[in-house]
Amino acid sequence: MDKSLNDYVKTADWKSEKHVPAIAAPEKVAAGETFEVEVSVGKEIPHPNTIEQHIVWIALHFVPEGSPVSEGIGRVGLSSHGSVASTASAAKFSLALQKGGEFHATAYCNLHGLWLSSCPARARRLEDKIGENR
Amino acid sequence: MDKSLNDYVKTADWKSEKHVPAIAAPEKVAAGETFEVEVSVGKEIPHPNTIEQHIVWIALHFVPEGSPVSEGIGRVGLSSHGSVASTASAAKFSLALQKGGEFHATAYCNLHGLWLSSCPARARRLEDKIGENR
Amino acid sequence: MDKSLNDYVKTADWKSEKHVPAIAAPEKVAAGETFEVEVSVGKEIPHPNTIEQHIVWIALHFVPEGSPVSEGIGRVGLSSHGSVASTASAAKFSLALQKGGEFHATAYCNLHGLWLSSCPARARRLEDKIGENR
Amino acid sequence: MDKSLNDYVKTADWKSEKHVPAIAAPEKVAAGETFEVEVSVGKEIPHPNTIEQHIVWIALHFVPEGSPVSEGIGRVGLSSHGSVASTASAAKFSLALQKGGEFHATAYCNLHGLWLSSCPARARRLEDKIGENR
Repeated sequence: MDKSLNDYVKTADWKSEKHVPAIAAPEKVAAGETFEVEVSVGKEIPHPNTIEQHIVWIALHFVPEGSPVSEGIGRVGLSSHGSVASTASAAKFSLALQKGGEFHATAYCNLHGLWLSSCPARARRLEDKIGENR
Repeated sequence: MDKSLNDYVKTADWKSEKHVPAIAAPEKVAAGETFEVEVSVGKEIPHPNTIEQHIVWIALHFVPEGSPVSEGIGRVGLSSHGSVASTASAAKFSLALQKGGEFHATAYCNLHGLWLSSCPARARRLEDKIGENR
Repeated sequence: MDKSLNDYVKTADWKSEKHVPAIAAPEKVAAGETFEVEVSVGKEIPHPNTIEQHIVWIALHFVPEGSPVSEGIGRVGLSSHGSVASTASAAKFSLALQKGGEFHATAYCNLHGLWLSSCPARARRLEDKIGENR
Repeated sequence: MDKSLNDYVKTADWKSEKHVPAIAAPEKVAAGETFEVEVSVGKEIPHPNTIEQHIVWIALHFVPEGSPVSEGIGRVGLSSHGSVASTASAAKFSLALQKGGEFHATAYCNLHGLWLSSCPARARRLEDKIGENR
């Protein structure tokens, strides 16, 4: 039986495995309101940031409630590792949603491959609160 | 039970589903020899290439035989869709391998999400032929 | 006389031209300290965020003082435009520096091309303050 | 006088400087016809491809004749450098044009920064030949 790429996309608890992206999003947002989502790798246990071993990119995806399709929000390439500048393995995306759903984040380490966060506590449900502010 | 992003990465036979990336690689290459791998979406059934519906990016991954880690080969962002220029949903990467393994390709459609090819015929095994030319 | 791509990279004051990236960085940081830099397009005059017209990506570069080489800090691809999700044309990078220099930001609009911010007020000089906190 | 990022984007003859991207495009194409453009760095003098020194990405741009705007065709991130796989610093984009213009290519080396090719011989003019095959 041949394997799919999915078989190589690893996950774990980000508190104990330094490669897993941690997603920080507000618990509730109003529909159409612009807010920030931070995705960071190595939040609890720092990941090395050297040219030999580093996080190459971090991506944020969103699946609207009831949808079978994952929508790309953004992807940040992290370019400097231990030179005069060092890009940390964290980025903040800014976005608005018309309805609720789930966030998913992926990250790639040049030595340890593809990682995914799918823990429900990190993929927070954003409730649809049209016309209501926080 | 919460879903993983993997649950939203779809696959199918590229001959009947226009979103699935087709991988064209030589059947055998010598170790260290530079060769091309073409990844194309819509090879048999063309995918629309308009600003409203298009393939946003295509990526190529490689898993060395026996390795638990998928290595990124490259990722091409396709930027022009129905303007003066139209970037086709196909790209050729150039690479060399030290040992055999499997290719996997992923692609993203702005309307229909993430697609993956994992059919063994498309993820061809490259044999390790050190010092031998084709 | 043939033109260079540089001839097509436009700039202006971000307060009056909605395509120019605005860079928000702290005025001083200590060497090695991790801090955030926000790059945003349309900060004063909002840029459209529709599938027909949107900011495709934003990149942040750094030139260490006295260096002839620009170093890539990061590049964020903004993927959703007027679907259920809309990625705003702003991102926050997180980084540390070993010495001072200048930031430069570039952005790409699918209709109006490449833009650059090089105004000294936005490319703030970060002073080298080893061992000193803000 | 403050510097612009453009002041750090270097160019030279790709035959004598290994960082400059070489563009290989057909001399004439018919409008709407799909064709390939190869962009390669180190075509004449190979560029190192190690984790310590490598080409990080290559991008292809197109300026339609008479237009003040550069259009992004594509950008390929090159991810493997001296591991089991090595992504060569070359990629082939596939595209169609509705009218003629000029190609421009950019590339980024993690040690030596941003490079651009703008030599007219490499930025070939594609003539508008509607309905005519090569």
